[in-house]
Amino acid sequence: MARTTLQARDLWADIQTLRERRPLVHSITNVVVTNFNANVLLAAGASPVMTQAHEELEDMVAIAQALVINIGTLDAYAVEAMTIALRAANARGVPVALDPVGAGATAYRNRTLAALLAAGRPTAIRGNASEIMSLAGEAVATRGVDSSAGTEAALAPALALAANHGAVVCVSGAVDHVVAPDGRVLRLDNGHEWMTRITGVGCSLTALVGAFCAVQPDAWRATAAATALMGVAGEIAAEQARARGAGVGTMAALLVDALQLVDEAGFLARARIVDD
Amino acid sequence: MARTTLQARDLWADIQTLRERRPLVHSITNVVVTNFNANVLLAAGASPVMTQAHEELEDMVAIAQALVINIGTLDAYAVEAMTIALRAANARGVPVALDPVGAGATAYRNRTLAALLAAGRPTAIRGNASEIMSLAGEAVATRGVDSSAGTEAALAPALALAANHGAVVCVSGAVDHVVAPDGRVLRLDNGHEWMTRITGVGCSLTALVGAFCAVQPDAWRATAAATALMGVAGEIAAEQARARGAGVGTMAALLVDALQLVDEAGFLARARIVDD
Amino acid sequence: MARTTLQARDLWADIQTLRERRPLVHSITNVVVTNFNANVLLAAGASPVMTQAHEELEDMVAIAQALVINIGTLDAYAVEAMTIALRAANARGVPVALDPVGAGATAYRNRTLAALLAAGRPTAIRGNASEIMSLAGEAVATRGVDSSAGTEAALAPALALAANHGAVVCVSGAVDHVVAPDGRVLRLDNGHEWMTRITGVGCSLTALVGAFCAVQPDAWRATAAATALMGVAGEIAAEQARARGAGVGTMAALLVDALQLVDEAGFLARARIVDD
Repeated sequence: MARTTLQARDLWADIQTLRERRPLVHSITNVVVTNFNANVLLAAGASPVMTQAHEELEDMVAIAQALVINIGTLDAYAVEAMTIALRAANARGVPVALDPVGAGATAYRNRTLAALLAAGRPTAIRGNASEIMSLAGEAVATRGVDSSAGTEAALAPALALAANHGAVVCVSGAVDHVVAPDGRVLRLDNGHEWMTRITGVGCSLTALVGAFCAVQPDAWRATAAATALMGVAGEIAAEQARARGAGVGTMAALLVDALQLVDEAGFLARARIVDD
Repeated sequence: MARTTLQARDLWADIQTLRERRPLVHSITNVVVTNFNANVLLAAGASPVMTQAHEELEDMVAIAQALVINIGTLDAYAVEAMTIALRAANARGVPVALDPVGAGATAYRNRTLAALLAAGRPTAIRGNASEIMSLAGEAVATRGVDSSAGTEAALAPALALAANHGAVVCVSGAVDHVVAPDGRVLRLDNGHEWMTRITGVGCSLTALVGAFCAVQPDAWRATAAATALMGVAGEIAAEQARARGAGVGTMAALLVDALQLVDEAGFLARARIVDD
Repeated sequence: MARTTLQARDLWADIQTLRERRPLVHSITNVVVTNFNANVLLAAGASPVMTQAHEELEDMVAIAQALVINIGTLDAYAVEAMTIALRAANARGVPVALDPVGAGATAYRNRTLAALLAAGRPTAIRGNASEIMSLAGEAVATRGVDSSAGTEAALAPALALAANHGAVVCVSGAVDHVVAPDGRVLRLDNGHEWMTRITGVGCSLTALVGAFCAVQPDAWRATAAATALMGVAGEIAAEQARARGAGVGTMAALLVDALQLVDEAGFLARARIVDD
């Protein structure tokens, strides 16, 4: 029986490090999730900053410990901002997390992603199964920004994408897959279906991937820590919401609470790393 | 005594259909309410997507089941995006819900609305009394984006507006009026005053109108279903908030909860269709 | 022993006036905090409107009772919008609250702030210690949008800034300092550390400063009222959240609740004006 090389206690150590170091995370993200993403980063222990102004991107990247690029809402100005910031981050060795929101949904998104991946190298890419499959060149039916495929079907495309771009790839869904360019695979089985009913949870996971890459140099492990933390917090929030007869509106606030308050015992009791 | 042609159980049937079909709703909306609107759509059962990128508007409208246009925060790029998307939706038969935020407040808003209504035809228009009266050509004192008039005063202008543009018109307020181009009028008496103290509730109702138009071809009935659902959910949320000594901050989350969780018995017990 | 000239009951009177008059507050603010700022203004009793469209800025300022300018997320269009609106407000005597988000973090922010202060005069400026020190011309280590200095160190720079620009200056932090161009200083000791873990609390305080300036002609007293209200509401929200084992996600909603619901007895029991 295969043994995973990461244990839940490794991921917990990274969560503690994030809370202690409070890295500055610069996000260029979509207008739907700015507020929620910033609150997720603050709750988890990071310090968010968001700007697209071309005049200050290099200055901001220079003081940031991570960059997050999210293509949820695009225009020419934002695409150029992402390109400038990506290049600056690569030049300085600042880790970059990329969220290919809606990859496959329109030709424009596909072109933009191809141009970004030609301009620089993300450290980690986080998407749902449809997005990762599309980005890996698979023909996939998409439906706006929600996934139309399961994560298992995206595993092989994710491995190819990771190898081609030298980036960690996270496919999030009912079971999350975190794959490295060298072929390492980690499966995480946390979360709750209601997480798909709150806008920006996926985008916020990508933001957390950036934050963890700021404090953990192994991007595969950093991405796993972010994914486990979000999954565990989502479970806690869903349980708490349902226990009081509440729904996804209340759960969104409880998710932020759990990101801030989950402790070692609570995390270790829930984090489920699935052996192959 | 006049009889209404719609019963609460008809509207409940549409709510169930929305939850089953999960239509993709493309919104071009203002930067204040993006997150709340997306969460409202997700809670009610729809799948939101938001983009203004001219390069992908036609592709996105082509996969959407409804389009929502909200003029709350404008610039030249957004206005052109709305125009492109409106024309594409009209060409494809995709229903369009229009929110004329702040109509009458500035000459620019009035010009923009006139240009949009010249460029295409919305399926439904949802506004407060001031906005609908202004859009119908009445001289009305406005005050930013909040209404300065009661809904009863807007009934005749709403009927004229509906007939002129071939669109359903919803005037929301203490009592909501839903009027059709053929003169049908439905009055709904749900909601709570605190709904006016949460930003984006009106905009979110317009988003729900779009979502219901995606699953119910009679736009008058679809608009009534959206209005009744929002009114009932607002009542539930206000009651729950007040029962625990909370205010409008907590109520906003409870409103999203109620949109997701309200069941048949709860809806039918509360929905108040007012006979003429 | 020095005596302060303002008592908590003076500030409470202003809170009551705000609730009664419901002034229209026009904000040009950053894309991260639009929704939260609008909900804070609504909860406190004001009526928010947000637009950057150059075509309508003068019309909107003409019907507004206050203008709020926040440089959190900039581009050339937004900067021009802020300049137009600031000049229009100055010309009409509409009070202006300025939030110099991230002052000192990048050269672009510094240039933009210098240009704004050359184009017009804010009535009040609200920032954290790093921002106020930077704006006053002090060399200060900054870290994105969070402060790296204590408020006490910013007192002298704040007094110089106030005198130079004829504006009230509020330095918010563990203890808040509100200083007037004529040298009056008020220290307020309310709030909770968790307020720094919710995005937009500082920006929302600036929005409240604008709202209070709309109803209280003494801008120093108006700024003190806004600061005391936010501090008291933050304390209440943090206590309530912690009492139920919740975190900063739940606290954000409770903060909005407290802004709406705090009553005279609750406010007077908590508001702590610190004598020199």
